[in-house]
Amino acid sequence: MNTPEPIDLEAQRGRVVVACAFQMLCPGCVSRAIPQMKAVHELFAKQGVLVVGLHTVFEHHDAMTPISLRAFLLENQIRFPVGVDKPADDGGLIPQTMQTYQMQGTPTLLLIDRSGRLRQQIFGHILDLQLGAEISQLVMDSVPNETGSAATPEQALSPGVNKLT
Amino acid sequence: MNTPEPIDLEAQRGRVVVACAFQMLCPGCVSRAIPQMKAVHELFAKQGVLVVGLHTVFEHHDAMTPISLRAFLLENQIRFPVGVDKPADDGGLIPQTMQTYQMQGTPTLLLIDRSGRLRQQIFGHILDLQLGAEISQLVMDSVPNETGSAATPEQALSPGVNKLT
Amino acid sequence: MNTPEPIDLEAQRGRVVVACAFQMLCPGCVSRAIPQMKAVHELFAKQGVLVVGLHTVFEHHDAMTPISLRAFLLENQIRFPVGVDKPADDGGLIPQTMQTYQMQGTPTLLLIDRSGRLRQQIFGHILDLQLGAEISQLVMDSVPNETGSAATPEQALSPGVNKLT
Amino acid sequence: MNTPEPIDLEAQRGRVVVACAFQMLCPGCVSRAIPQMKAVHELFAKQGVLVVGLHTVFEHHDAMTPISLRAFLLENQIRFPVGVDKPADDGGLIPQTMQTYQMQGTPTLLLIDRSGRLRQQIFGHILDLQLGAEISQLVMDSVPNETGSAATPEQALSPGVNKLT
Repeated sequence: MNTPEPIDLEAQRGRVVVACAFQMLCPGCVSRAIPQMKAVHELFAKQGVLVVGLHTVFEHHDAMTPISLRAFLLENQIRFPVGVDKPADDGGLIPQTMQTYQMQGTPTLLLIDRSGRLRQQIFGHILDLQLGAEISQLVMDSVPNETGSAATPEQALSPGVNKLT
Repeated sequence: MNTPEPIDLEAQRGRVVVACAFQMLCPGCVSRAIPQMKAVHELFAKQGVLVVGLHTVFEHHDAMTPISLRAFLLENQIRFPVGVDKPADDGGLIPQTMQTYQMQGTPTLLLIDRSGRLRQQIFGHILDLQLGAEISQLVMDSVPNETGSAATPEQALSPGVNKLT
Repeated sequence: MNTPEPIDLEAQRGRVVVACAFQMLCPGCVSRAIPQMKAVHELFAKQGVLVVGLHTVFEHHDAMTPISLRAFLLENQIRFPVGVDKPADDGGLIPQTMQTYQMQGTPTLLLIDRSGRLRQQIFGHILDLQLGAEISQLVMDSVPNETGSAATPEQALSPGVNKLT
Repeated sequence: MNTPEPIDLEAQRGRVVVACAFQMLCPGCVSRAIPQMKAVHELFAKQGVLVVGLHTVFEHHDAMTPISLRAFLLENQIRFPVGVDKPADDGGLIPQTMQTYQMQGTPTLLLIDRSGRLRQQIFGHILDLQLGAEISQLVMDSVPNETGSAATPEQALSPGVNKLT
């Protein structure tokens, strides 16, 4: 959502990506993580940082459908792209990307450097002062050469988050 | 919801009622009105004040269904009774109680005295200090006698809000 | 300070008085109690409630002189009357009114009814919602007759706070 | 204050310095700038960033003496070094460093890079997210060589702030 066409994260190599896994009915997401992501988007977009949301529904699945999410984004004036995590293949409650990253819950913040490598994964809240510093460091990192920057399989972005609708 | 059986507001004569019309995806409701109602419930329940919520969906109807609302109440730990406003008879967007009270939007706070009379209707935010004072005044008011207390028709509670599921 | 002439609290019989004992360098006073008193002053002045501050310096005496206090009131836009507690007779650190009321520290809030009786003494913070309710109750209390309302000596206002410069 | 011996800022070449000009009775300083500086001190000290305060009294001089300041630092648990700006030579109200930097008031934040060059001067408030990013950028800057980094006279630190008691 909020994007003319699906985003292929592979194609974002060279950009710093700040991804936030959230649920629209998670109080900590609504009161802290979402406003923080909006501020990051406003401050760092001009430096090429890509902010994306990922709706990782792992409870109350019937209550947090794409229709509800779309209204939520509108009401909360969220303008950065937001994808919906794919339901589990095995019929379980935890969606695919959440499983791949072994997230403990929402909100979870992912900081990804220019080479596509996952540099930080934070469950819960991180102070603005620290987050600003972390993102700034990734922005200042030059792009590593192709050979040296290969992310290890377990750190690399899974196919599950590649497609943001 | 949050009540073993429907609440008949007529039967609440003699109690002070604080009612909050809200929508689960209205940011001002989530960040300010709902926490305020939770605090009112915690502070004034022992003085017999009844706090009720009323889900008055007038936009994004598909996104704010009873299923979503139920998860919302659970996630936000809302323990006072919450009713769902009846859809408009004429197929319009504004539900019945909202129409009856000519509410301008959400959140809207209704303060109802022991005789069932609507004493205050506030659209938007009211300071805690003032709300505490207003409720306290209603609590201290003695119950008027049956004859003298009849609410005028336009002020009395409409049938639309009598049934809280 | 902030008053054309000293306030004689005896002469305030018939009014509800909200008194706040504070120190200008006490962080909890500056961040919470003083803003709360300013809000009380703004909201309840029209109902005849008298808000007064009492500078009860019990530490760093050289740092919190009347000269410093005067600048503090100006910078923080405090417009209600503020008195300075008299130093201890015996040369001790705790000033007289603080001793009389056996206050445990700052901020301490005193709620005094129309008959001059001390009704509440709160050390630390009280929620706006509750404070609004407490003040409102005192405002609604009618003035008791002279005979019945005599405050007990230990509850009555000590001479130490009668004189507000 | 808060330092065993006066700090010579010239000797700090090679370190990033975050300096905050404040007044102990300035509400914006107490509520926002000082807590922000404490957070910066806590977060960036391990990366070698030096946080210093500068008490630039330009009004109510009698109310904000070093004695009052010392109590203020203690009560607000400020542990980074704080210096007192020298009074004006000409008997004016604006102290020397304030004049040199042509500050418009308090709080004013100065960001100084490893070569001693003033990189940012901000009057008023800056968001945590942005401040974290700015400091992080200065931290990542390598030390420029002696020749190239000479600050211009008007940007270099004046003697007035060199001595922190």
